[in-house]
Amino acid sequence: MGSVDELAHERRKTQFDVGALKIVWAGSQHVFEVSDRMSKLVAADPVFFKDDRPRLGRQELFQKTLRKTAHAWKLITDLRLSEEEASKLRHFVDEPAYTDLHWGMFIPALKGQASDEQQEEWLPLAYKMKIIGCYAQTELGHGSNVQGLETTATFDPTSDEFVLNSPTLTSTKWWPGGLGKVSTHAIVYARLITDGRDYGVHAFLVQIRSLENHQPLAGVTVADIGVKFGNGGYNTMDNGLLRLDHVRIPRKQMLMRLSTVTREGKYLQSDVPRQLGYGAMVYVRQSIVADASNYLSRAVCIAVRYSAVRRQFGSQAGGPEIQVIDYKTQQNRLFPLLASAYAFRFVGEWLKWLYMDVTRRLEAKDFSTLAEAHACTAGLKSLTTSVTADGIEECRKLCGGHGYLCSSGLPELFAAYVPACTYEGDNTVLLLQVARFLMKTLQQLGSKKPVGTAAYLGRLEYIMENNCNVSQAKDWLKPSVILEAFEARSARLAVNCAAQLREVSNPESGFGELSSELVEAAVAHCQLIVVSKFIEKLKQDIPGKGVKNQLEMLCNVYSLSLLHKHRGDFLSVGYLTNEQSKLASDQLRALYSQVRPNAVALVDAFNYTDHFLGSILGRYDGNVYPHLYEEAFKDPLNESVVPKGYEEYIRPVLKHELRASKL
Amino acid sequence: MGSVDELAHERRKTQFDVGALKIVWAGSQHVFEVSDRMSKLVAADPVFFKDDRPRLGRQELFQKTLRKTAHAWKLITDLRLSEEEASKLRHFVDEPAYTDLHWGMFIPALKGQASDEQQEEWLPLAYKMKIIGCYAQTELGHGSNVQGLETTATFDPTSDEFVLNSPTLTSTKWWPGGLGKVSTHAIVYARLITDGRDYGVHAFLVQIRSLENHQPLAGVTVADIGVKFGNGGYNTMDNGLLRLDHVRIPRKQMLMRLSTVTREGKYLQSDVPRQLGYGAMVYVRQSIVADASNYLSRAVCIAVRYSAVRRQFGSQAGGPEIQVIDYKTQQNRLFPLLASAYAFRFVGEWLKWLYMDVTRRLEAKDFSTLAEAHACTAGLKSLTTSVTADGIEECRKLCGGHGYLCSSGLPELFAAYVPACTYEGDNTVLLLQVARFLMKTLQQLGSKKPVGTAAYLGRLEYIMENNCNVSQAKDWLKPSVILEAFEARSARLAVNCAAQLREVSNPESGFGELSSELVEAAVAHCQLIVVSKFIEKLKQDIPGKGVKNQLEMLCNVYSLSLLHKHRGDFLSVGYLTNEQSKLASDQLRALYSQVRPNAVALVDAFNYTDHFLGSILGRYDGNVYPHLYEEAFKDPLNESVVPKGYEEYIRPVLKHELRASKL
Repeated sequence: MGSVDELAHERRKTQFDVGALKIVWAGSQHVFEVSDRMSKLVAADPVFFKDDRPRLGRQELFQKTLRKTAHAWKLITDLRLSEEEASKLRHFVDEPAYTDLHWGMFIPALKGQASDEQQEEWLPLAYKMKIIGCYAQTELGHGSNVQGLETTATFDPTSDEFVLNSPTLTSTKWWPGGLGKVSTHAIVYARLITDGRDYGVHAFLVQIRSLENHQPLAGVTVADIGVKFGNGGYNTMDNGLLRLDHVRIPRKQMLMRLSTVTREGKYLQSDVPRQLGYGAMVYVRQSIVADASNYLSRAVCIAVRYSAVRRQFGSQAGGPEIQVIDYKTQQNRLFPLLASAYAFRFVGEWLKWLYMDVTRRLEAKDFSTLAEAHACTAGLKSLTTSVTADGIEECRKLCGGHGYLCSSGLPELFAAYVPACTYEGDNTVLLLQVARFLMKTLQQLGSKKPVGTAAYLGRLEYIMENNCNVSQAKDWLKPSVILEAFEARSARLAVNCAAQLREVSNPESGFGELSSELVEAAVAHCQLIVVSKFIEKLKQDIPGKGVKNQLEMLCNVYSLSLLHKHRGDFLSVGYLTNEQSKLASDQLRALYSQVRPNAVALVDAFNYTDHFLGSILGRYDGNVYPHLYEEAFKDPLNESVVPKGYEEYIRPVLKHELRASKL
Repeated sequence: MGSVDELAHERRKTQFDVGALKIVWAGSQHVFEVSDRMSKLVAADPVFFKDDRPRLGRQELFQKTLRKTAHAWKLITDLRLSEEEASKLRHFVDEPAYTDLHWGMFIPALKGQASDEQQEEWLPLAYKMKIIGCYAQTELGHGSNVQGLETTATFDPTSDEFVLNSPTLTSTKWWPGGLGKVSTHAIVYARLITDGRDYGVHAFLVQIRSLENHQPLAGVTVADIGVKFGNGGYNTMDNGLLRLDHVRIPRKQMLMRLSTVTREGKYLQSDVPRQLGYGAMVYVRQSIVADASNYLSRAVCIAVRYSAVRRQFGSQAGGPEIQVIDYKTQQNRLFPLLASAYAFRFVGEWLKWLYMDVTRRLEAKDFSTLAEAHACTAGLKSLTTSVTADGIEECRKLCGGHGYLCSSGLPELFAAYVPACTYEGDNTVLLLQVARFLMKTLQQLGSKKPVGTAAYLGRLEYIMENNCNVSQAKDWLKPSVILEAFEARSARLAVNCAAQLREVSNPESGFGELSSELVEAAVAHCQLIVVSKFIEKLKQDIPGKGVKNQLEMLCNVYSLSLLHKHRGDFLSVGYLTNEQSKLASDQLRALYSQVRPNAVALVDAFNYTDHFLGSILGRYDGNVYPHLYEEAFKDPLNESVVPKGYEEYIRPVLKHELRASKL
């Protein structure tokens, strides 16, 4: 990392074993080792250079992505990387590309929805990338509401084919990544029509481009949907549009694991339980939560390091100014985000366990935890992505003016991240699903014991009656005190909503009317889950000098900063007194002083290479200003000292010769 | 606007005179007329076409900006536009450019800081754009803390010149708009050194480029600082860097209104009061508040219209789905922002009055309201820009996935707007200034009667003792009830902080320790100002059928949504009971139903052309989907059906020929 270390004085303050925390962050020694090796492999390879992305036009940007993607695939095959290594390598290349959809959606969808026979035919081709696939669900006029899709797949018994068609403009497939320019195949969601009846939305495997010359097949109109947020951001991805004009595919290319259409056109359900689909949803959402902690930790790493480098005000007798990270206002915005990055990491880890648990149960046809698991993953997806999107932008602002430069890395991080709030379930729609689950759970309390993350609702009587008994600030450091407070807030908000819903004659329109309050109850429930999983993590044996201490501190920062932010909830449900709320804020402030000396080490523990961070402000060595200066000169505008356009557009202004000039 | 009007059914629901509200929004019939004329002039001129910006590389983007800027200047001179018309024209061209700084900072700085003699020499050149100027204050290592600037201007009595120098890398001027590629002159802030003494930061007029060939003058290094957030955004602006290597300027180019250096090198203060500088600050900040309402209203206009066009879920018996704007969750996020746009408009209007009042008083050497006016403008700048930045992004999310496309207009609006949170005073730093003012006001209550927006603190005894007396939801519609609640919250939060500060031995470190709480008190004070100015506006005679009703409704939405969001404050200071807080939320929900039928008309009242809005989602005619489809095909990636790079990077993957290929 060179010989400069502007942050050495910070690193000397560290009160814990950073190496040990790196293992905790990674999840295990093994994962740490693979990640470390793959991230360094990528960082050392000039093909994966990415700092120029914000300066490139769309065409050139996309070319380079194609090159990186092919190069990554070459490395994966040449070095015979394992699936785990390959996935880490793609992660550290850090550039949205068609391969994300091929590996992350197309192949999993085949596995989940194709019959065994179909899998045998198509998966080997997909694994070798002899075909490249995407996942074409959303349409120009239809996002969240999958049941409203308009594309049709009509069975033609005369030829044993499905005829896929886009009957309206709004039925145009719109958004699928990898569709616009690269994919040869698409899993297309369409209304299955056979025998004159509409059986609703089903999945079909449709070849869209020739494997010989990449031309769209007959009846296929396909294109990129245009520029998206950010200079680089998601513009490396060919999100696409697709119109199908009576495109014919063999009947056998309907994905037939859950239902089939016979040669005669008869629709049959298989005996595979429908609920299996939920397993896939839990899987996708747990990976989104893991991603949230990845993105948030990158932003926090940049902001913490630069806040330690940057100085502003408070110079004493001509000495250096104060490090920005020493200001309480900075700590109050930054440290809760640092704590959130850790909190999301651990809840993401737990979700991996949940996914395995759900899968195991589904295989045993045990559906008893499914509703709870579904609500929990929906809520955590919503909570973590919202906090992360806002958190990245907050980190950008915490870097002052320079955060606005693309060389800070933060604008692109934000632009690339924000779609997570919308895809795989709009965050508000998901919270309403959580709220529905909560209302149902309360309704059924007499007959059905709540499980998992909803189990606390089984202790409703105790929770409604017992208020907080904190009498001094340090009481707020006890995990049991925190947990009870978050349980009480969540349970009581939900109970209040349920009581109001009971009063209205039409529960459905009542639910709509009360939806903002229901969303607040859902957020409270989700925050409780994150807090409780952080606390559970701390019950484990965590090796390494001082590591557990640090995590306890971050858990308290996470919890108390939420409590402060949402004190309106805690107060209005009558759980806290004003004095107890104030004690929590006092304790929070005291915790910031404990985080402060460890802040830089706590972000070093993420083990990010400078390549992956992609930020001059976040450089490991803190040597920010010379590199900002150097980077400026790479801008296309600096190719000449006198700008292009001077003769046509500047000189005539200065010389008052505009009348004569042709603009 | 063509013959399609997908929103006609919405417009028929309107319960007020939209034309009359247009006048209220504009401020006067005259301003409305000028704005309307200029916006249509710009919209009709093909040179000002701007929808292609996100697709352009930096170089091409900047060329086009130079062309538009020259063309606008040509129009202004050819049509002999008045200063007011010219400024509106530039506003509707809607593209950050060097002229913003020339007219908005360079000329005002000359007026405020140059001596009469200097103004006579330089202003005519600037007015005719025979010189183009920028405002070079911030440095690579110095933003908020102006007193920490490092650039020096050392007087050399032997030649009667100042020698301007950048002694360190961090002293490089960094960020000034217009500096990078265009300006011929810069107002450079530097430490004045004469007679061996450092007199602190002063302003100097420095020519940086030749007026003949635009080459930087000897000793001047100047360049663009590189790509910023967003595809278009602020990348049309040449924010620049400047290093001065012992550059000599005549002594007479120190700006000498407030102080001078004599031929002998003696430093003299003039008798012009220092406080005059505050007038300029109030002016700049009031224009930033006006801008906030401009930007927020654009985002809200797009989101409201598209929420009325877009349908999702709830189809009954195959009929159309429900308009997204009918969902309470959508209303709960969108309508408070709509109300904020109006609230900021009216507080901005009032700030114009405040600026005139301050100017009048300064001229009469009456400094009694200066501290209050300064705190008030600092706070309003911070509040309105923060809400607007977050609000634009919220509007983008409220448009679902399509908000992420640049053709929605929202990504660029956000990217172009967010620097407002940082420039002209970082928002957190400004709130701390407000807090300092509040603490001082409370301290001096015995001896000094608080004035203007702080006058309520003079009624502290009443405010501390009297709690809310609301007993039914509709009580919350009374302006006096709202006002008292916001006064109580703000005053009590400030009093709590003051009490805690009195307990510590070192008030300065206590202020730092308590700064997060102080910031909360400052926010409460600023929100009170906005609420109270909205209420004051409604005391005026407002013509037009139903217009006043609508504004009263919006004022209540603004106030009650803040009350709900910050109910933790209102509850924790003991002003509200839980029941009263709940009544406020109930009333707010009822108000949303009243806003709903008027929502589209309330954004039509902004009178924005489709050109200015620059958003397919926000089109006046609501004809969104055909235009989204059409726009996609303009992307450079769609120039060919088979993408560039297929032969090199896609085919070898599909054909398993990567080993042989050279990437």
